[in-house]
Amino acid sequence: MKKEQAIAIDLGGTNLRVALVTREGGIGQRIKVPSQERLDEALLGAVKELLNDGVAGIGIGVAGLLNRERTAVEVSPNIPAIEGAPLVERLRDKSGLPVYIENDANVAALGESWLGAGRDFRNFVLFTLGTGIGGGIIHDGRLMKVEAELGHMSIIANGVKCSCGNYGCLESYAAGKAILGFAVTALEHDAESVLRNFHQGNIYKLTPEDIYTAALDGDILSRDVLREAGRYLGVGLANIINICSPEAVILAGGLVGAWNIYIHEAIREASRRAFKQLFEKVKIIPSSLGDNAGIVGAACLVFRNAEAG
Amino acid sequence: MKKEQAIAIDLGGTNLRVALVTREGGIGQRIKVPSQERLDEALLGAVKELLNDGVAGIGIGVAGLLNRERTAVEVSPNIPAIEGAPLVERLRDKSGLPVYIENDANVAALGESWLGAGRDFRNFVLFTLGTGIGGGIIHDGRLMKVEAELGHMSIIANGVKCSCGNYGCLESYAAGKAILGFAVTALEHDAESVLRNFHQGNIYKLTPEDIYTAALDGDILSRDVLREAGRYLGVGLANIINICSPEAVILAGGLVGAWNIYIHEAIREASRRAFKQLFEKVKIIPSSLGDNAGIVGAACLVFRNAEAG
Repeated sequence: MKKEQAIAIDLGGTNLRVALVTREGGIGQRIKVPSQERLDEALLGAVKELLNDGVAGIGIGVAGLLNRERTAVEVSPNIPAIEGAPLVERLRDKSGLPVYIENDANVAALGESWLGAGRDFRNFVLFTLGTGIGGGIIHDGRLMKVEAELGHMSIIANGVKCSCGNYGCLESYAAGKAILGFAVTALEHDAESVLRNFHQGNIYKLTPEDIYTAALDGDILSRDVLREAGRYLGVGLANIINICSPEAVILAGGLVGAWNIYIHEAIREASRRAFKQLFEKVKIIPSSLGDNAGIVGAACLVFRNAEAG
Repeated sequence: MKKEQAIAIDLGGTNLRVALVTREGGIGQRIKVPSQERLDEALLGAVKELLNDGVAGIGIGVAGLLNRERTAVEVSPNIPAIEGAPLVERLRDKSGLPVYIENDANVAALGESWLGAGRDFRNFVLFTLGTGIGGGIIHDGRLMKVEAELGHMSIIANGVKCSCGNYGCLESYAAGKAILGFAVTALEHDAESVLRNFHQGNIYKLTPEDIYTAALDGDILSRDVLREAGRYLGVGLANIINICSPEAVILAGGLVGAWNIYIHEAIREASRRAFKQLFEKVKIIPSSLGDNAGIVGAACLVFRNAEAG
């Protein structure tokens, strides 16, 4: 009997989730798990709860660096419990099923390729735009098994030091933490802005959403900050367009909500920078799966690998 | 009868060449063609001279942007005669053989993958380091059909304007024209250097080779200039390591001769910037085919495509 379901584990964002997904991409029962200690026990418990005879395998998307064989996580600063092979092996032993693992942004790209905004493209690059920036590359219809750490390409060689050790990383200038940093620095230097009215005047509690809200209300500082981050994002988009000449760039993550100012500016900047012949052919579009890309992509890992093997 | 030869056309550098190559990679008869006008007639003539019953097809490596289907050159500033499909079609009509075409740096990567420094790697990135910088990416043993314009990733977002329209391109800081630019600017500002003794004191006739020669003789300006360009090259290497997590980076082109200063500095800088776990696993090595990579790779286009069907 062909097994029609996968157990998908999304360890990408702050909401860690386990779900049953059908071969058509339908998402069934979901379980949220805590991100704190005992994550491994919580995952094993959730998998046990969802396990049934129709499950073909377990797919995991996780924030971290994978080994080249894509069988284990080498480094995962946010989810140390997943480092090394123990959890993968325990899941395999407990379930008796194959377990596949990939980087969370790679899994999101796979999800968009299977059922989302990437369905119609054989070649696209996905950027996840949140606190930081991640990426995944689909080439010739298949997920490239590479780290695709797009947020850690240096776009300002002598720029600010990043937590990764590099200088001038794209995500230090173009992601959520940059947007907040630009705004807070300006506010500390007495810039005028309605942002002072948020959170009882505590500027250190501002979020990128606050800044987008204020920008849509016409707040000049907020608009400037989003445009500046957008221009830097455009530098990264142009670099990837010149390197990968994709048919599409798909933008995912919380910041995509700020499309009208931040993303518009990024596209404009990329159009000034990328090779004209390549920019004319690339579509820059939002993710269509949103938060579900990770779950759907993790299930896709199972179905594609099962077919290939 | 299995056809055992390919006609390989190398339109990459300044020496344009046509050669017979065997299925084992042996290079037979070669013909140089002029790069000036009437290139198409010269190529047709050379192909006619080499054509025999054992030829499986014609492979072309050319400096320029290809269309997505890799059937024609869209833009080739140095070799306008090759733009559009007419030359490819004429070669096909005259020879009755399949004609395959690719970007010159992509073809060099394919050559290194087949018979050169990339033989032992399923995943590597090739940089061509000359006046400018080109690239080719081998993923999972196959050439990625992308532009891989590595020289035109911006590493200094607000840097100097490049002829491509972008700002702060890697090749503006890390290739031959940058090395010359740094040196000439310093000499114009009265820097002391033995470079003044070259070319009867005409600093505008200096070449990157002159600068490397002087550097090996201990000339401080020359060493500084090569180190500076090397550091910028290291930024580009780190970016590609973080994005593509390759097993190897292969460095080709004339500047590889300056390994001991320029490339050493680039590797050192990349080691400071790339993700530690990725840098530890990547080998950074010189091309082993040198000038023949283009010819060998163009022949490989024929044999691989013929096998693929």
